[in-house]
Amino acid sequence: MNHDTGILFVLSGPSGTGKSTVISGLLARRKDIRFSVSMTTRLPRPGEKNGKNYVFCSRENFERAIAQDLFLEYTEYSGEYYGTPKKDVAACLAAGYDLLLDIEVDGAMQIMEKCPDAVSVFLCPPSLQELENRLRARGTESEEKILSRLARAKIECKSAYKYSYIVVNDALETAVRELDAIICAEHCRKELRYCSYINT
Amino acid sequence: MNHDTGILFVLSGPSGTGKSTVISGLLARRKDIRFSVSMTTRLPRPGEKNGKNYVFCSRENFERAIAQDLFLEYTEYSGEYYGTPKKDVAACLAAGYDLLLDIEVDGAMQIMEKCPDAVSVFLCPPSLQELENRLRARGTESEEKILSRLARAKIECKSAYKYSYIVVNDALETAVRELDAIICAEHCRKELRYCSYINT
Repeated sequence: MNHDTGILFVLSGPSGTGKSTVISGLLARRKDIRFSVSMTTRLPRPGEKNGKNYVFCSRENFERAIAQDLFLEYTEYSGEYYGTPKKDVAACLAAGYDLLLDIEVDGAMQIMEKCPDAVSVFLCPPSLQELENRLRARGTESEEKILSRLARAKIECKSAYKYSYIVVNDALETAVRELDAIICAEHCRKELRYCSYINT
Repeated sequence: MNHDTGILFVLSGPSGTGKSTVISGLLARRKDIRFSVSMTTRLPRPGEKNGKNYVFCSRENFERAIAQDLFLEYTEYSGEYYGTPKKDVAACLAAGYDLLLDIEVDGAMQIMEKCPDAVSVFLCPPSLQELENRLRARGTESEEKILSRLARAKIECKSAYKYSYIVVNDALETAVRELDAIICAEHCRKELRYCSYINT
């Protein structure tokens, strides 16, 4: 009997799809889920806090952690490392909390291989055209950057079928509700394994 | 592309678990799901309406329908037939509505074999002791009938692991919410098959 172990949820999706907003909405709605803070070698952006948005560390420290096999997954993106420390994941699940990881497709594939019980969700925009509209509407990025994000989004979307679920972020409230429903439903699957008086 | 086809949900659970109440709660909450009315040879109970609770028919008509292979599933229970007509199911799903079937374990196994896309949910009481308490609290049944229901419940619960999900009907509102979440989550799985711009 291990009824109190949490479930590991992996969320991926192209940049600009609204992942952070959906995650904030979810965390406000569910008090029984924790969000995993990744380690990275990139510099903090204005307003980002160490230990909240990321654990920021040097390239040397990150590579030492790789050598010690301390990451559940890690990836290098735009010249910077991003990774999920194993011990944070294990501690959270053992304490009975679900854990949500926001990670790139590469990292998600590593998790799915190492943790077959993890539940994966791909968050995608209603269409690539809509993603382009949203990126342009921000008005904060160069044409080159927008095209590069779109090209990457197109590649990432090709991996969507490898995930357990797809949530289309058309309306924020609906996307949050769907993610919430997936978590709730997965606990009903888990019940299958732990319902004490059944199959005895 | 067949995005508008509904999903077939199969709900089973021991008598006394509160299936009908959970179903009523669900139907009040979701307008996009239909409830399948079974055919039966048993006589209507006081208050039951033909075409609403069941389609009541003669033994002769039921057996003719069996011979014509008109049922998706049927079973004989306590000397009476109960069955789900194929055409009702097909018409509802094709019209884009989800369909919920409330059927015995035997019938559910037939559906799972014939319709691998069907999603099955087993509704169970928090414990067999609690089921016994509930049956006794009703005060409407003989000791013999109560013991017979309990014996049957124990057998039925052994099939729970064959279902996709288990919902424990401890608190009604929670059970309804969980069933609702399962339906919502399954649509996110379905999205995988139909997201038009992905994997192209």
